[in-house]
Amino acid sequence: MPLSEQSIIDFLKRTAAVGPAVEVGIGHDAAVVRSPAGEGLVLKSDQTIEEVHFVRREQPLELVGRKALARVLSDLGAIGARPIACLCSLALPDDVTESDVHALLGGLLELAKRDSVSLVGGDLSRSPKGIVVDVSALGFLEGRAPMLRSGAKAGDLLVVTGPLGGSREGWHLSFEPRWRLGMALAASGAVHAALDVSDGLARDVHHLCRESQVGARIELGSLPLRELAGGRRATIEQALQDGEDFELLLAVAPDRLAGLSKFDRHRKELRLPEETSLSLLALTAIGQVTAASAGVVAVDAKGNVTALPPGGYQHQLGA
Amino acid sequence: MPLSEQSIIDFLKRTAAVGPAVEVGIGHDAAVVRSPAGEGLVLKSDQTIEEVHFVRREQPLELVGRKALARVLSDLGAIGARPIACLCSLALPDDVTESDVHALLGGLLELAKRDSVSLVGGDLSRSPKGIVVDVSALGFLEGRAPMLRSGAKAGDLLVVTGPLGGSREGWHLSFEPRWRLGMALAASGAVHAALDVSDGLARDVHHLCRESQVGARIELGSLPLRELAGGRRATIEQALQDGEDFELLLAVAPDRLAGLSKFDRHRKELRLPEETSLSLLALTAIGQVTAASAGVVAVDAKGNVTALPPGGYQHQLGA
Repeated sequence: MPLSEQSIIDFLKRTAAVGPAVEVGIGHDAAVVRSPAGEGLVLKSDQTIEEVHFVRREQPLELVGRKALARVLSDLGAIGARPIACLCSLALPDDVTESDVHALLGGLLELAKRDSVSLVGGDLSRSPKGIVVDVSALGFLEGRAPMLRSGAKAGDLLVVTGPLGGSREGWHLSFEPRWRLGMALAASGAVHAALDVSDGLARDVHHLCRESQVGARIELGSLPLRELAGGRRATIEQALQDGEDFELLLAVAPDRLAGLSKFDRHRKELRLPEETSLSLLALTAIGQVTAASAGVVAVDAKGNVTALPPGGYQHQLGA
Repeated sequence: MPLSEQSIIDFLKRTAAVGPAVEVGIGHDAAVVRSPAGEGLVLKSDQTIEEVHFVRREQPLELVGRKALARVLSDLGAIGARPIACLCSLALPDDVTESDVHALLGGLLELAKRDSVSLVGGDLSRSPKGIVVDVSALGFLEGRAPMLRSGAKAGDLLVVTGPLGGSREGWHLSFEPRWRLGMALAASGAVHAALDVSDGLARDVHHLCRESQVGARIELGSLPLRELAGGRRATIEQALQDGEDFELLLAVAPDRLAGLSKFDRHRKELRLPEETSLSLLALTAIGQVTAASAGVVAVDAKGNVTALPPGGYQHQLGA
């Protein structure tokens, strides 16, 4: 029987003892732990593995290192935290060179510097096969309430922060982690639930609906489709299934959506740099949250309503 | 040219930008980051990898999972932090079974529960070969000053917290991470420098001397030697070279050593459980800190002084 990610998560939820400092544990984009003084600390780790997430001789290791950090910054952004520090655990096979290692870590450190995230430690080891990078990060909530996968309410608008689909053609290595936007959205108080779209929109809508115990209605004609090389655009099917978009999916109170354009006010309050411009705020409503009994459905341009299965990338870990 | 751990650490120290929140970064047993309110947060990750750190069919996966967490608790203890939460990133090859995964995570969770450390998240992925576990942990300093590798002064006593050598015969899988003792030692203010002995005493003495810019004189006759199966004891050579002892090596102000036996007072102040008994406090003085110009030397029972090379496990990452 193949090992599924969900069965392991369920085992951990059943078995793990959770202490009083833990506000948000297993099952969300990131965890929230309260410090002794009550400060909100956010933690998350993400692995980037050769032959699973990248091919060494096909993708520049600078971009692999950048992605290894960007993935975890995206998770911190989905919860509304400011990323502060990261650890990098690196397992290296015998066939890597010093310049491979410098390229990979150089790419990671360049993004870290740009985003004011400090690499403060980690671990180095041999790997029996393939490069394994695991980046864990610490973020601060600074008084903001975390945005979780739970909390969406029937009647909320479903909103994405950028185009979807076709990420494999390049965006998955160069994507912009939406942590500044995530901080501003969390500060606004208008967002009831959030996650970052990594498994494909269809599957991630199901994640959000399961944790919030709601249904969803996705308007296929409203999906923002990524521009690809040669003047092509991603298809609706790609937007639903491809994954690694790393845009945020939000459930927003409908009367609050218009107010979210006041991002510039939040930017100043949050001490974000000027170059974090309004252009980051490309919010697109793609549907509504419904009652759980209505399930997860898609509506096409002609008004036809069909069930929307999770699809997307199935995390199967065993053979 | 083989890739050495030190050359990668040196690259990171040269290249990484360090933000104002970072109090202790790359190169110590764990990192210290200050929260917005000034609380001391401690971070560390450690990898435990099949074919590098363990053999799947020779060592029970429960103990491998336990070790994966215990290693990072040992690092947090060396700096004086109370471990609070951890993340587990797990990469699984196609040939693992559900019971393998439950055994490994079960062993980790049992220690986590015993030590009141909450597993709050992590990441799951396929591995191209071998199980890769990376545990990262968050600890709180609660107002204590961190114990670092730097800070040892000529005239300090060098002290270890338990017997050394022969860890490979079993202790490396069942060792007791000294975090409670580390907290008490940090609270005492008597410790000028500390690290956990993972690379072998000889190599770790050199680590401490390099970071503190001091020399050391090790009395070989004073080394506490581990009791092994069949009434044997570890040899002095094993105590110097084997590694994975996970005892703390401390540089202690000589007039403060006797006072450290008042551990029970610290235990209550630190809200540690009763079973954290005085028996944990098996401090053994094994030498003195000297001026850097005196180098690192060993003194045998006859008073002969010889240079003590680092030896121990050489972290060579390349072929």
